[in-house]
Amino acid sequence: MKRVFSGIQPTGEIHIGNYFGAILNYVKLGEELGKNSIYCIVDYHAITIPHEPELLRKRTFDAALVNMAAGLDPSKVILFAQSDVREHTELGWIFSTQTPLGDLERMTQFKDKSSQHSVLAGLLMYPTLMAADILLYKANTVPVGEDQVQHIELTREIARRFNNRFGELFPEPLAVHNKDALRVPGVDGQGKMSKSKGNTLGVLEEIDSIWQKLRVAPTDPARVRRTDPGNPHICLIFDYHKLFSDLDTIQMVEVGCSTAGIGCIDCKKTLMKGVERTLVPIQQRAQELYSTPDIVKDALHEGAREARQIAQQTMQEVRDALGLLNP
Amino acid sequence: MKRVFSGIQPTGEIHIGNYFGAILNYVKLGEELGKNSIYCIVDYHAITIPHEPELLRKRTFDAALVNMAAGLDPSKVILFAQSDVREHTELGWIFSTQTPLGDLERMTQFKDKSSQHSVLAGLLMYPTLMAADILLYKANTVPVGEDQVQHIELTREIARRFNNRFGELFPEPLAVHNKDALRVPGVDGQGKMSKSKGNTLGVLEEIDSIWQKLRVAPTDPARVRRTDPGNPHICLIFDYHKLFSDLDTIQMVEVGCSTAGIGCIDCKKTLMKGVERTLVPIQQRAQELYSTPDIVKDALHEGAREARQIAQQTMQEVRDALGLLNP
Ligand code: SF4
Ligand code: SF4
Repeated sequence: MKRVFSGIQPTGEIHIGNYFGAILNYVKLGEELGKNSIYCIVDYHAITIPHEPELLRKRTFDAALVNMAAGLDPSKVILFAQSDVREHTELGWIFSTQTPLGDLERMTQFKDKSSQHSVLAGLLMYPTLMAADILLYKANTVPVGEDQVQHIELTREIARRFNNRFGELFPEPLAVHNKDALRVPGVDGQGKMSKSKGNTLGVLEEIDSIWQKLRVAPTDPARVRRTDPGNPHICLIFDYHKLFSDLDTIQMVEVGCSTAGIGCIDCKKTLMKGVERTLVPIQQRAQELYSTPDIVKDALHEGAREARQIAQQTMQEVRDALGLLNP
Repeated sequence: MKRVFSGIQPTGEIHIGNYFGAILNYVKLGEELGKNSIYCIVDYHAITIPHEPELLRKRTFDAALVNMAAGLDPSKVILFAQSDVREHTELGWIFSTQTPLGDLERMTQFKDKSSQHSVLAGLLMYPTLMAADILLYKANTVPVGEDQVQHIELTREIARRFNNRFGELFPEPLAVHNKDALRVPGVDGQGKMSKSKGNTLGVLEEIDSIWQKLRVAPTDPARVRRTDPGNPHICLIFDYHKLFSDLDTIQMVEVGCSTAGIGCIDCKKTLMKGVERTLVPIQQRAQELYSTPDIVKDALHEGAREARQIAQQTMQEVRDALGLLNP
């Protein structure tokens, strides 16, 4: 039986890279696996680097809201905030007592981040909490980006070590690559879309603001004049068409561009139709949810209750294996 | 208002050094402070070095049982096992995210222990969990042995840092010295009584076994013959008299020894009267509790419930200050 666990970072505005890279995948997995698809907004990871309390609170809420607006149905999957289920930090502590310090000091992400920030102990411990997130639900499948593969390897090692020492209890989860591998390009044409590069199109961004960005976005530089043919395969607008437009439109653009049948502004206007068709319904649902925040909060509350049921069952077994009293 | 938190190690047989050094003090504080005296059997600390599950389970239970047999009334104080209150590891995690790694690496106990065992991450994190133990209850007074003073200093620092960063929430607790400073001597006369030296008299040890140890215990070597006067102030038997015997007996021994009025065997036999008067009732209560283990388990269960009420109130404030969603 497949059980998926995925951590959702409560970090900043959600952009279309997140939407096509992760959220759509969550929706699809949710339809396939139901309550065996578990999505956790990892606010206790977010505080391993200095944070602003009000911003974290907003971002945790927004992460839930955008996923719901984009089609993740909290009644079909399990969606919750990490800090609402105490068992995460509890199992994280237990794993820290069973993990050599050297294993954590070796993590690439720790080495990277600890050169950017003052080194707080939580940053070093991060992978033991991440292992707890996954193993608490005995998840066997973890969609991750490339930068998390080493942490999943450590999670497998932690599971293996625990099983050897205290009896077979955990599966060794497998990393599956997020379609993040899709690498949605940034609107500046300078590589992957990412918050830190300021080249994003937000899922909740005003349609006109998106248009202003697309209007000036670079296209194939060979098209100096309207009559110059272009190569759509080196143009980021064509990449966006592949995400937002239907097959007929994609074919029309491919032919039209390479024969100078359409101009770049027309091509971008056509793209906007797909953008609107995709984002406007999401933005409308988001607006509804912002005006009824209790729907989001109640969903997280209920998700935490469902998560806790599984987590507490696992912890019962863990505590028994470890020799805790379990009165 | 004074609130005391004390951690009880679930480590091995409880000896009379523990009894006179700590347990009697707990009983006294409990009578004075009632539910503001909080005693926590720290099983989640115990696993920071390799442990045997069944042994840990037994020792956690025994630690509760012996304290109860020795007079700690769980209906008057709060007595519980650390692992029964999830909020300890939760707040421990939070503190780890706010504590520079260097502060933990500097701890003397970490340096000592990490040279003895393979270095597990939990050993490094120990002081953040200890800070959580104390601050979760906003305790202002912590009876500790000399080896824990540095950890209390760090706890104060963690409280200070949190208060500065997120708003005044925690007191800065003060270490008060355990009468462990009393340093009950070992029965071999070679310094402090301790499990690792094998020179203990157990609180639950059979009276005859205690007698066999005392019978051969060293006395003032000047008393070669029965008629040689001795110096009780250099004799560990006299130290024991000061713990177990009444004032009249202590004076009688002091005079009798220094005037050769009593022999060492008589002196030891007199000591045994005090030992029996102290330990037999404890041993009887212990036997009753061993035959009705549910009384101990129920007490811990109820203690955890009481502890949780305070802990959850604190965590509500912490989560709010940190910017967690708190749905
Ligand atoms: S027509 Fe479209 S695909 Fe071709 S270069 Fe212009 S914007 Fe890019
Ligand atoms: S008489 Fe008692 S106090 Fe004096 S040396 Fe002998 S055992 Fe020690």
